[in-house]
Amino acid sequence: MNIAILFGGSSFEHEISIVSAITMKKVFKKSRLTFIFVSSDRQFYLIDAKEMTSKLFSSGSYKKCKVLTLKKGGFFSEGLFGSKKIDFDVVLNLIHGQDGEDGKIASMMAFFDIPFISPRIEASVLSYNKLYTKFFAESLGIKTVAYEHLSKADDRKITLPYPVIIKPVRLGSSIGVSIVKDESELDYALDVAFEFDTDVIIEPFISGVGEFNQAGCYTSRWELSIVEQPHKEDFLDFEKKYMDFSRDSQVLAADIDDALKTQIQENFKKIYYPLFKGAVIRCDFFVIDNEVYLNEINPIPGSMANYLFEDFEPMIHRLASNLPKEKYIMADYRYIHSIQSAKGKA
Amino acid sequence: MNIAILFGGSSFEHEISIVSAITMKKVFKKSRLTFIFVSSDRQFYLIDAKEMTSKLFSSGSYKKCKVLTLKKGGFFSEGLFGSKKIDFDVVLNLIHGQDGEDGKIASMMAFFDIPFISPRIEASVLSYNKLYTKFFAESLGIKTVAYEHLSKADDRKITLPYPVIIKPVRLGSSIGVSIVKDESELDYALDVAFEFDTDVIIEPFISGVGEFNQAGCYTSRWELSIVEQPHKEDFLDFEKKYMDFSRDSQVLAADIDDALKTQIQENFKKIYYPLFKGAVIRCDFFVIDNEVYLNEINPIPGSMANYLFEDFEPMIHRLASNLPKEKYIMADYRYIHSIQSAKGKA
Repeated sequence: MNIAILFGGSSFEHEISIVSAITMKKVFKKSRLTFIFVSSDRQFYLIDAKEMTSKLFSSGSYKKCKVLTLKKGGFFSEGLFGSKKIDFDVVLNLIHGQDGEDGKIASMMAFFDIPFISPRIEASVLSYNKLYTKFFAESLGIKTVAYEHLSKADDRKITLPYPVIIKPVRLGSSIGVSIVKDESELDYALDVAFEFDTDVIIEPFISGVGEFNQAGCYTSRWELSIVEQPHKEDFLDFEKKYMDFSRDSQVLAADIDDALKTQIQENFKKIYYPLFKGAVIRCDFFVIDNEVYLNEINPIPGSMANYLFEDFEPMIHRLASNLPKEKYIMADYRYIHSIQSAKGKA
Repeated sequence: MNIAILFGGSSFEHEISIVSAITMKKVFKKSRLTFIFVSSDRQFYLIDAKEMTSKLFSSGSYKKCKVLTLKKGGFFSEGLFGSKKIDFDVVLNLIHGQDGEDGKIASMMAFFDIPFISPRIEASVLSYNKLYTKFFAESLGIKTVAYEHLSKADDRKITLPYPVIIKPVRLGSSIGVSIVKDESELDYALDVAFEFDTDVIIEPFISGVGEFNQAGCYTSRWELSIVEQPHKEDFLDFEKKYMDFSRDSQVLAADIDDALKTQIQENFKKIYYPLFKGAVIRCDFFVIDNEVYLNEINPIPGSMANYLFEDFEPMIHRLASNLPKEKYIMADYRYIHSIQSAKGKA
């Protein structure tokens, strides 16, 4: 199978997407990989697998690579003798943050009829925006921690007791996130978050809470990863998360009882199906007093959370063979014909 | 101002989009119009304004028109002497239903940095899916009528008392909608709705309820249309709505008191701002016991609801000059540089 890794994007997580993509070279042992880079000014480039080093991008040398055009059915390189289609079986969307997780890549792949592994448009919008994730979880009867929402123009008043955690609604990888211990720190933390987004979400900061990650997908059956209990300080800052995105070896399962594991898995399945069909996602849960709360959905987890699966590469192949496909709706011009004949113009 | 009317799409409302687009020739008197057609198999064609008749499309003759490619900054025609950019100032997204209202066109215009009048991605997803519209309205404290949601695989059990109205969650223009008077009709109505969508929403059918439409946008100030009370039978079926999409002359304002008008307008503003910035939308409200309920959001109303405005063309010009623009997020490769220097590779 030839998998096109699509990475980069106009995103605060552009660089960690590059790290995720380079990691894929170690993770996929039997597949052919085709690398398609989206520069931060949104040109597509075909990158030779041998040249996939971080330096190619940080030095700007990628600009010498072949530019691609997105058209019906695929990516094309234009040359003197016409347009040549780039050969691959499926796109793996590995663009973290804006462009990749906000629905743009999903929209373009669906529109141009390119098979792709990624959350689809609705799934992207509901998981990229933490406020919409709350609405979605509530509609499924899945618990989330209490929250307040502030827009840039709102009065900076909150009613939750301190400490609280402040997050831009639309970013991943802890960018713009602060823990606020008391009111005196609130203003600065909001300034930071509003640098990155028009809206923030505020939640109680619960120290020492159990956190558990579950990744998975639905192919022709459920394929769930181990449950991981990430080792954390207060929270991972950007640099630590950045290193985290290059993980390629399997980690140990959390030492939890079967009842809790089942609870976590059932919550994961409720969230995933059917909205996230076609994607591998990771859900991060809190466990408070033996109750499972959804913390967040990672629609395109770092390095695809490969380190949580025993069987990652064959699973991706199975997923590629079980993608949801949007139907073309073909016009038959029935109404126009009937109006034309009513008007005597047919 | 040169406005590119983007119409067609792979949508059950493909034909009414053509009707909407043709209507724009009468509505825009001072602007230059450029017509870009999206065929139902999703090729872009440049259509000469003089050739804009329904027959061009129903006969298939549009296939002889110039094919366009979407690239950074605009639409291009490819010829022997290279690529030529199509000249216009702004795109007006007039694709009803799938492609236009589901976020795909918004995604592509944003990604390729083309100024466009349309709901943006999040606004599209929340208004295209009637279930998500409910979540969104609830989060704003705006009333909607009671509802139940069924997926294709669910047990066909409902608890709402009859009569009910059944709607596919993702379609407009009354496609797949039925009124169900008692349980014996339920199965057939669900079969019809599930022909078009994986999910349906079920609401009480309230006969003779007051219905009021409010359209508008925010340019540098609020620009609200008159409030219209549409004349309706039980509900408009597809053929009647179809005719409705070619309206180009102004209608009369509903005869309602100022208090109700203010209530309708305040609800409209709450829904519109800031999510729908960049778009002209129409909200359809019910009034029950003097309380305003959101029925649905029309993110791309038929013929842009031009007939509800006194001042449609200049308003579109003002909107085109006040579009929200997504910022490019440019990578500075700071993290990659710092890791490279830590590894002695800088």
